[in-house]
Amino acid sequence: MQEVYIDLGARSYSIYIGTGLLPRLGEYLKVLKLTPRVLLVTNPVVGSLYGAAAETALGDAGFEVIRAEIPDGEEYKSLATAEKLYDLAYTRELDRRSPVVALGGGVVGDLAGFVAATYLRGVPFIQVPTTLLAQVDSSVGGKVAVNHPRGKNIIGAFYQPRLVLADLDVLKTLDPREVRAGLAEVIKYGVIADQAFFTWLEENLERLLALEARALAHAVAASCRIKARVVQEDETEQGRRAILNFGHTLGHALEALTGYTAYRHGEAVATGMAAAARLAVALGMFPEGDAARVINLIRRAGLPVEITPELSTGDLLASMRRDKKVLAGRLTFVLPVEIGRVEIVRDVPEETVGRVLHLCYN
Amino acid sequence: MQEVYIDLGARSYSIYIGTGLLPRLGEYLKVLKLTPRVLLVTNPVVGSLYGAAAETALGDAGFEVIRAEIPDGEEYKSLATAEKLYDLAYTRELDRRSPVVALGGGVVGDLAGFVAATYLRGVPFIQVPTTLLAQVDSSVGGKVAVNHPRGKNIIGAFYQPRLVLADLDVLKTLDPREVRAGLAEVIKYGVIADQAFFTWLEENLERLLALEARALAHAVAASCRIKARVVQEDETEQGRRAILNFGHTLGHALEALTGYTAYRHGEAVATGMAAAARLAVALGMFPEGDAARVINLIRRAGLPVEITPELSTGDLLASMRRDKKVLAGRLTFVLPVEIGRVEIVRDVPEETVGRVLHLCYN
Repeated sequence: MQEVYIDLGARSYSIYIGTGLLPRLGEYLKVLKLTPRVLLVTNPVVGSLYGAAAETALGDAGFEVIRAEIPDGEEYKSLATAEKLYDLAYTRELDRRSPVVALGGGVVGDLAGFVAATYLRGVPFIQVPTTLLAQVDSSVGGKVAVNHPRGKNIIGAFYQPRLVLADLDVLKTLDPREVRAGLAEVIKYGVIADQAFFTWLEENLERLLALEARALAHAVAASCRIKARVVQEDETEQGRRAILNFGHTLGHALEALTGYTAYRHGEAVATGMAAAARLAVALGMFPEGDAARVINLIRRAGLPVEITPELSTGDLLASMRRDKKVLAGRLTFVLPVEIGRVEIVRDVPEETVGRVLHLCYN
Repeated sequence: MQEVYIDLGARSYSIYIGTGLLPRLGEYLKVLKLTPRVLLVTNPVVGSLYGAAAETALGDAGFEVIRAEIPDGEEYKSLATAEKLYDLAYTRELDRRSPVVALGGGVVGDLAGFVAATYLRGVPFIQVPTTLLAQVDSSVGGKVAVNHPRGKNIIGAFYQPRLVLADLDVLKTLDPREVRAGLAEVIKYGVIADQAFFTWLEENLERLLALEARALAHAVAASCRIKARVVQEDETEQGRRAILNFGHTLGHALEALTGYTAYRHGEAVATGMAAAARLAVALGMFPEGDAARVINLIRRAGLPVEITPELSTGDLLASMRRDKKVLAGRLTFVLPVEIGRVEIVRDVPEETVGRVLHLCYN
């Protein structure tokens, strides 16, 4: 088992990464200072696979479990669903030390985290991420949110979990498409911050696609450490933390314009990273050979590097202008200068972005 | 003008207290690092009195103002109203550095603050409190929230403003009942933390009721300083900060059981403080003479010290059990041991509470 310690002063916590962790969930919670009623938030699929194991683990440690299943899909990551959880928490008299446990992927984690951040002005939040994407992304950074009908993660907070358990066993039941989507973010960490890790990924991609436990543990821990290093420097995204949004400017636009259904988040980010690599080449700041390495690794992971022809460049530009990272209407991109190092480039001319986007259709 | 500096590390800010501050709102905002679009949240009454002055002050400093008026009353401090503000902010493309300015009392401040805390995971929040209660209470502590249909402030966050302007001129148009309600919290600060201030209040109460500017400035600044001292020690209410809830355990129950309409918040707290003083006497921890001084000062301020006969002791006890400060079902009270010092008493027997409540009816 690997432990990644996220050092954020009074809000520090640990991520445990390994096999056989879910059956020990109750033990881990027991050492925190909690009252015995737990709100377990999951979705029907994860609930049917792992809900009973979580409940047994918690029950054996003396916790009473209130299970809430929310339908899967970004459209349920809403204030309306959050309200149902507030109602449940209030009706069952959960208090300020009653933990909210998120058992699931990004939707469950973001929504349960937002409820934990805002119910009684904040209750203990525990993450048990069950997708590769959630393990490498949502478990570090404290970003919790629900969607606005017209924009993703528009309503949210920065709120740190008390504990994260990333059990690699649960990835065995994950749809291979979800594994690949998670690898998009893993590749992202290599590009933005760690050339050696990127090279390791080029050499070990097949082991990851085959869900080999030791390779997975290394990739998840390395990803969490890179993200932690960035987040520790800039907890509330005032500056440097924005490098984590590599691939996300276009990625969010792709998701928004397709109603959050056509793309998995990682797939949209993959396309966005390929486009960002091309944009950096066009701006003369990134060698073409490096761009080819990035695009090739994304492609080998079975991820898209091209924009579907249904989406017009004009619509994509308009959507990017509304991204919440945009300040005073200027387009900002995170662009690589070499593999392992990126820069935040403000005021990229829309004309250049449009021209590069045209190259991203097949 | 007095300045009270709230020292919370990276989240530090200043409260400016004095006359003639509202016309200078734009100047104060200009030195912060903001984008030029401002969401000004107010209510119809305050908006008609001071909205134009705020808009002129902001406009002269180069800000574009989007005014949102929310109906007055706790029932509008809801997720539904927050959603309307999210919609407006999103439609008008407010970004992460677009400030939300709350011009109003507690309802406006709590709601606008909750929206500022959660829109795009947090945007700059500016408070211009227009009631005495908001000036001495909401402007320090970073508590923002909306109500759940069945409980007050159930959904919220801890979120610090970037700046507070407490303009004493605006109190001139305040309903005298609101002035008295604000004095309840002022008296509270004397009882919980400052015997000399309590004595000053006994000697200067009439000057405050007459809205004499120098006396008001002293009372507001002293209150903010006391609250700041407590909050700095315990920003997220894990322990000592709970002393600020003196009078609030019963106060919240009185408000909840009357649907937040019969009592002003300060009136409910006044009744709660009188009851807490009596409870402390009953538990043998507070001299009867001191309790008489507390109750007498509350009475002189024109505030209620008795429970209306419509409310039963049983209902009040049941409501207190649901207070969000309650942990694992145990009744907790903040009780005075002398004027200027209180203690947090957990596990007060319900039987004793019930007996003392019976004494609080006239």
